[in-house]
Amino acid sequence: MSQTKYALGLDFGTESGRAVVVDVGSGQTVGSATYRYADGVIDEKLPGTSIRLGPDWALQNPADYLATLKQAVPEALKVAGVQADDVIGIGIDFTACTILPTRADGTPLCFEAEWKGNPHAWTKLWKHHAAQPEADRINAVAVERGEAWLPLYGGRISSEWLHSKTLQILDESPDVYTAMDRIVEAGDWVVWQMTGVEKRNACAAGYKGMWNKATGYPSNDFLRALDPRLDGFHQTKAAGEVVAPGARVGHLTRQAAAWMGLRHGIAVAAPTIDAHAAVPGAGVTTPGRMALILGTSTCHMIVDEEQHLVPGISGVVGDGIIPGLYGYEGGQAGVGDIFEWFVENAVPGWYERRAAEAGLSVYQALERDAAQQRPGEAGLIALDWWNGNRSVLVNAGLSGLLIGMTLGTRPPDIFRALIEATAFGTRIIVDTFEQNGVRVKELVACGGLAERNKLLLQIYADVTGREFVVGGTGQASALGAAMLGALAAGRQAGGFDSLTKAAQSMVADTGETYRPNAAHHKVYQSLFADYQRLHDTFGRGENDVMLRLRELRHQGV
Amino acid sequence: MSQTKYALGLDFGTESGRAVVVDVGSGQTVGSATYRYADGVIDEKLPGTSIRLGPDWALQNPADYLATLKQAVPEALKVAGVQADDVIGIGIDFTACTILPTRADGTPLCFEAEWKGNPHAWTKLWKHHAAQPEADRINAVAVERGEAWLPLYGGRISSEWLHSKTLQILDESPDVYTAMDRIVEAGDWVVWQMTGVEKRNACAAGYKGMWNKATGYPSNDFLRALDPRLDGFHQTKAAGEVVAPGARVGHLTRQAAAWMGLRHGIAVAAPTIDAHAAVPGAGVTTPGRMALILGTSTCHMIVDEEQHLVPGISGVVGDGIIPGLYGYEGGQAGVGDIFEWFVENAVPGWYERRAAEAGLSVYQALERDAAQQRPGEAGLIALDWWNGNRSVLVNAGLSGLLIGMTLGTRPPDIFRALIEATAFGTRIIVDTFEQNGVRVKELVACGGLAERNKLLLQIYADVTGREFVVGGTGQASALGAAMLGALAAGRQAGGFDSLTKAAQSMVADTGETYRPNAAHHKVYQSLFADYQRLHDTFGRGENDVMLRLRELRHQGV
Repeated sequence: MSQTKYALGLDFGTESGRAVVVDVGSGQTVGSATYRYADGVIDEKLPGTSIRLGPDWALQNPADYLATLKQAVPEALKVAGVQADDVIGIGIDFTACTILPTRADGTPLCFEAEWKGNPHAWTKLWKHHAAQPEADRINAVAVERGEAWLPLYGGRISSEWLHSKTLQILDESPDVYTAMDRIVEAGDWVVWQMTGVEKRNACAAGYKGMWNKATGYPSNDFLRALDPRLDGFHQTKAAGEVVAPGARVGHLTRQAAAWMGLRHGIAVAAPTIDAHAAVPGAGVTTPGRMALILGTSTCHMIVDEEQHLVPGISGVVGDGIIPGLYGYEGGQAGVGDIFEWFVENAVPGWYERRAAEAGLSVYQALERDAAQQRPGEAGLIALDWWNGNRSVLVNAGLSGLLIGMTLGTRPPDIFRALIEATAFGTRIIVDTFEQNGVRVKELVACGGLAERNKLLLQIYADVTGREFVVGGTGQASALGAAMLGALAAGRQAGGFDSLTKAAQSMVADTGETYRPNAAHHKVYQSLFADYQRLHDTFGRGENDVMLRLRELRHQGV
Repeated sequence: MSQTKYALGLDFGTESGRAVVVDVGSGQTVGSATYRYADGVIDEKLPGTSIRLGPDWALQNPADYLATLKQAVPEALKVAGVQADDVIGIGIDFTACTILPTRADGTPLCFEAEWKGNPHAWTKLWKHHAAQPEADRINAVAVERGEAWLPLYGGRISSEWLHSKTLQILDESPDVYTAMDRIVEAGDWVVWQMTGVEKRNACAAGYKGMWNKATGYPSNDFLRALDPRLDGFHQTKAAGEVVAPGARVGHLTRQAAAWMGLRHGIAVAAPTIDAHAAVPGAGVTTPGRMALILGTSTCHMIVDEEQHLVPGISGVVGDGIIPGLYGYEGGQAGVGDIFEWFVENAVPGWYERRAAEAGLSVYQALERDAAQQRPGEAGLIALDWWNGNRSVLVNAGLSGLLIGMTLGTRPPDIFRALIEATAFGTRIIVDTFEQNGVRVKELVACGGLAERNKLLLQIYADVTGREFVVGGTGQASALGAAMLGALAAGRQAGGFDSLTKAAQSMVADTGETYRPNAAHHKVYQSLFADYQRLHDTFGRGENDVMLRLRELRHQGV
């Protein structure tokens, strides 16, 4: 008797949370439902009050996470027509670093009348950017002390991360810092609510909290050097065992089972970060294959048996992506949003009208026209730094460059040059990994751009000289979360004992593979040599004109 | 009794010829008329035949020049209501190098039945670009022999010039070369037709024929090294006294007077090149003031008492612009046509619609929006090489560069950066003149762009740190031609004895003066330092990426 089993994936995003019910035998999503957060992104004033937030603030209401459980899950089950008894495990992916201060029992401070009028009592969303002064301080002190963990994060930590946001609370609202017993990633908090067990996932702890599998968190000495009041932070307010995503944290309580219409006692997995969930979701669970999550920006993720020091990546974390392996994250700060900038700001009216006459969107027309060119035909090279450079230069102050324009240059020429530039940027990242000991044999694409832009995928294959396959569905993160649920459930309950086995069952082979064209690759080798030279000239200090231009831009603002 | 006197200016352009009747006391144009050439630019097949022309060919029919005399002059006089007796002299400006092969009596070969089917018998227009192989040969031989005149022309001569075009005739149609008794600039030919006197103007001879006031033409040895059949060329087919523009070549014959409805015996001046006519036409007749003829491209002209060697300019010619002074010509290959490229190819539909709603052209809206920015606000720098670089790099293979783009970059930002780039390009030319001994105290603007683009003129003043005045009318070339006519007539006939005196009378002060804003100049000093560094990096061989991109563009074409 082989009863079909299902895993539940919960995908908590910026504006909404989504539940997907996935057949663990086929990977097919049989039902899904989305709950749009009632309070959304809180960036103007606290809900129900006139308390205004500062610039760069971004909060969420944890009540919205619970509402997702109560509303999206039962609806997804209903859509799927799946019995509660056939759901064997739950996995979660969540934006990060998205953190909230709570009591020792998990109650968010912002649920208490005493604190709900204080913005620091609420969840700080990943894109809360008001802790830049604190990040600057952390970086300065870490450099001064020669902290060993700093090079693992490309030499600079972000204002988005755990310690920056915590320090902002301490700086601006020491009473909230004192009152909170814990500060916890929202993904871990949701699992805590479902299981009654408080643990921390290695993905967020590692990529956003500088936790290291071998050495733990930054030392107490470092924290005291930052601010003496941080003494003991990781033994108290940030305490909790760190476990790999997909590890079984506990079992669904009766109360949480009732919220969601599920059977109590099923396995609940340690969560992971949304982008990182897409790695197993795209079928990448072993070394040698690099997952590219292609969207407005691009994340480059790969796993390896060893911990290597790769300069300019966002982080390397043991157990961070796939249990038992070191997970590496790199990224390009601007990809899809550069194409969008171009379409919005630099494509003339006559081209828009011609596209419309052909029944195409501007984007489709550009792709069609650019696809007819041979590499190099337009004689253009761009540096893809419209939104700064994340990997491998880690410099938000860099900006775009376009070279080679003539009076004959037309919109599809520039569009193709922009795609090529992002491909060259990926090539730099791939080369940097390889030069530092991480093997990259093949590229696997997922994310929004992977589904609709064949020209881009072919150019990436031609530029990198590697096969580029489209991995899994367009919802790789939600599928990855469900795979973590099936892993936590284990083989005996109808799940799996490893993510590799889960991927074999649950990730469908799309069959879409882009193979490098040898003639195109040869032209791109020559163009890439010029890209690299421009990259180094303007990105490595030889000519700091971009930073001077940025200074001018900001003067008198 | 002070009877008002008039000078006739004849402005022979690419598509048409124009006659203007100018009051020598006030400079006011009292009447004008245009004749559109019946055969226009001949670039597909010879008129009335099926004989096809090669690519890059461009011819004219000299019959169109005579038709201009017969039709435009009487009409301009009629419009002006001026008596033939009150016209004291005639001056001419003409495109150059625009040359035709003739008999010893001046009859164009293409007027003869025997030759009219041979394309080489017709006028080769300035933009006939089919003599590039010949120009390459001339440059190679000149470099090899270390010809002293080569550095006076920026180290490279053009396919447009006299010797290139002549050599093409010799290469491709030696029978035409043998049959022609003369090869003559069209401007000199028109004067010959009007006076019966054959002379050559120093402007075209100098800038397009490498004639030098002190040393004459390139030596016979050089010509023989190019091709033994050129032996004696400058004593035979290109013979003729060289005189300064405005020198009296002769007097109007009875026949020519009848064609034009004028009195026979009036003075006819040696002609000049159209762009160079704009110099006196803009009131520039003495050292220290640089005339900028701002159009699709820009010419930079200045005169000085001495002959200096200025690297990268188009030429220095004694008597070339103003009699008795050395005339210098530099230029930017793309100015107005870069702005036009931008408006046509890179301004989005929403911006076009917003401009239309405000009742503005796209160009006007861009100027309005860009004018509201302070220098440097958009954080962009461009290299203005969309059409290559003429001065001071003399490299048609260079191309455009734009640096500093962010996701927040908008169309007026780029538009302003392009204007600034052309201003920086002018600043390089101004600095090069000054560094090599030619003083530049003030800039004088004329040409199409000078009339309608206040933002551009202010930016040029701010970037160069010099006053920028608008010189004369929008028809500076035609006015300059009329001034040459008044000069040839002389003071006794009611004209003038010098161009400086002619300018005092005939060039109206527009009063439009753009003074550098000190605060803006300071910002532009810093931006210019970066422009100059990019200019040298990409223009002087440090990084030849533009030339490599050009090669790629041309591969497989």
